[in-house]
Amino acid sequence: MSRAVGVDLGGSNCRAALVDVEAGHIVTEAKEPVADHRPEAVAALVAALCRRVDPSGSRVGVGVGFAGMLRGVDGFVVNAPNFGWRDVDLGAPLSAELGPAVAVHNDLNAIAVGEQRYGAGRGVADLLCVYLGTGIGGGLVLDGRLYVGASDLAGEIGHTKVVPGGRLCGCGQRGCVEAYASGRNLALRAKEDLGGPAPRATSAAATLAGGVAHVHAGHLDEAARAGDAYASALWDEVAPLLGMTLANAVTLLNPARLILGGGVWEGAPELGRRATAVFRDLVNAPSGAAVTLHPTELGATAGMLGAAALVAEERQRSS
Amino acid sequence: MSRAVGVDLGGSNCRAALVDVEAGHIVTEAKEPVADHRPEAVAALVAALCRRVDPSGSRVGVGVGFAGMLRGVDGFVVNAPNFGWRDVDLGAPLSAELGPAVAVHNDLNAIAVGEQRYGAGRGVADLLCVYLGTGIGGGLVLDGRLYVGASDLAGEIGHTKVVPGGRLCGCGQRGCVEAYASGRNLALRAKEDLGGPAPRATSAAATLAGGVAHVHAGHLDEAARAGDAYASALWDEVAPLLGMTLANAVTLLNPARLILGGGVWEGAPELGRRATAVFRDLVNAPSGAAVTLHPTELGATAGMLGAAALVAEERQRSS
Repeated sequence: MSRAVGVDLGGSNCRAALVDVEAGHIVTEAKEPVADHRPEAVAALVAALCRRVDPSGSRVGVGVGFAGMLRGVDGFVVNAPNFGWRDVDLGAPLSAELGPAVAVHNDLNAIAVGEQRYGAGRGVADLLCVYLGTGIGGGLVLDGRLYVGASDLAGEIGHTKVVPGGRLCGCGQRGCVEAYASGRNLALRAKEDLGGPAPRATSAAATLAGGVAHVHAGHLDEAARAGDAYASALWDEVAPLLGMTLANAVTLLNPARLILGGGVWEGAPELGRRATAVFRDLVNAPSGAAVTLHPTELGATAGMLGAAALVAEERQRSS
Repeated sequence: MSRAVGVDLGGSNCRAALVDVEAGHIVTEAKEPVADHRPEAVAALVAALCRRVDPSGSRVGVGVGFAGMLRGVDGFVVNAPNFGWRDVDLGAPLSAELGPAVAVHNDLNAIAVGEQRYGAGRGVADLLCVYLGTGIGGGLVLDGRLYVGASDLAGEIGHTKVVPGGRLCGCGQRGCVEAYASGRNLALRAKEDLGGPAPRATSAAATLAGGVAHVHAGHLDEAARAGDAYASALWDEVAPLLGMTLANAVTLLNPARLILGGGVWEGAPELGRRATAVFRDLVNAPSGAAVTLHPTELGATAGMLGAAALVAEERQRSS
C-alpha cells in the first residue's frame, strides 16, 4: 500500500495529510496557521506537519499544492501574492528539511488531480476544474494526465479577458474575468458602488453584511435572490461574463466534466444558476452535450489528495 | 523506412501522398476533384488515389484528414456541411476498399500534427494551430500528442463566443468568432453592408473585387491598407474579436507555439497585424512571454503529412 504526504500550502493555513494513494484515503491529518512567511520558516512548518502526520516516515514522498505561480515541480516560486514572494526558491529549504522526494504543484493543478483520481472526476479522462474563490483559478486533466503547459501556467482561466480595457485585475492587466467575478473583486466592487461619501447605489447586501465594508459575494447573492435591484443588476452583468468564460473553455477543450468549486461558487448559488444558464446557451452545442457540470466532491481535502497522488506517481515513474 | 499514405479530403478536392513518415518527406502525390459526394463514391476516389500514389502497397496504413466533425477515428461522420452529410459512415466503404488500416481524423487535427512533427511546431510539445479560412478551426497538440477531447471536438476555437447574441453562425448558434472573422462570413457581411437596393456603405473593396458579390477578405484587407473607411472600420471591429479569442486560448492552454494559417490569415495581412497587436495586449502576460506566433510552414501538405504520421503511429502502437 503506497502512502504519500499531501500538503495544501496557502497564505493563511498549511494542512498536511498522510494519504493512502491507491484508496484516496486520508490516514492522518494536521493543520497549522502560516505565521511566518519567510521561505525557511514556511519550509520548516511544512516539514513539521509532515513529521506529525507521518512520524514513522512511511511516505514515498511529499506533494505540495501551493497557492502561487511556479516553474517546474522543484519549488521555484515565480509569484505568490499571498506570501509576498517573487522569484523565491522554496525548493531548497524544503529539500533541506525533507530530502529530494518533494514535488510542488500549483494548488489548482493539485485540486484537479485530486478530483480526477478520487472525487467528482473519477473515471473521466478529460476535465476542467474551476475554483471561484478569492481569485479564479483552474486546473486541467487531459487524457488522464495533469496538463501544465509550456511554462506551468495552463489553466489560468481567471485571466482570460471578457471586457477588453475593463476593470483592473490583480494581475496588472485589465478586463480579466477574475476582475469581475472573483470574491476579492466582488467585495471591492460593492465598496466602490455602495460606499464612500457619495454612493452610486444602495443595496440590502450592505444591511445583510452589517456594513458596506463587510459585503461579500454571499451577501450579494442573498440580496439578488430577494429581488434587490443593485445585486440583481450586478449579477446580470457578472453571470454572463462567467458563463461565457466557462462555455468558451469547454468549446475549446471538449472535456467530459467541468468541476466547479470555491467559496464564491458555493456561497452564491444564484450567481451560479445564472452563469450556468448562460453557459448552456453559449457553449458549442455538441461539446455542451458531451460535458457534465459537477460540484467539487472532496472540498478542502482535494489539494492534499491530488498532491499526494502526483508525488506518488512521479516517484513510481522515476524508480 | 516506414511509409504511410496521407489523404486530405475536402468538399472540393481530394489529395493523397505517399509519405516517408520518419523524414516527413512526400514520395509521390496526386489530386482529384470530388465530383460525386455519395459516401461510396468518395471512398472509391480515396482508394483510387491511394493506389495511384502507392501502387506497390508499401504503406503501413492510410490516414485521412477530413473536413468535418467525426466520432472516433474509424470514419463515422457526425456532420460535414461541405459534403451535405450528417451521421454518415464513411468508414465502412473506406475499409471495404482499403482494408482495416485506415484512420480518419478531423482536418485541423491532422494539420496540427503535421506542423508539430515536420513544420512550424518541430521540437515543441504544446501547440495550438488555428486556420482562418472559409471557416475557423483549430487543432491541439499537447504534451507531444494530439488532444481530441471527450467527443473528438477539442480545438473548435471557431465556435467560441465573442458577441453573445450576435451574428448568426453556420453552426446555428450566435456570436461565434467564426461568424465575424471567417472568409465565408466576411464575404457575407460585405454583401449585407455594400449590396442590395439600399447599401449601408460604400467601399473600395467592391471596386477591387469587380463587384460587391465578389468581395472577399483579401479585397477588404487591401482596401483597409489604402485607408478605405468601411474596410478599416470593419477591421476595427473584427481584429479585436479575433485577437481576444487567440489571447484567451493561449491564456488557458499556455502553449509554446501558436501556429496560424489559412486563406484569410494569408490573404489579409492587415487584419492579422491588428489581431496580433490585440493578442499581445490581452494575453495573460507570462503565458504571452512563453508563446511564439508562427505562420504554417507546410501549407497545403500539412494535413496529408499529419494524417500519414497519425496512422503510422497508431499502427506502430497496435502492432
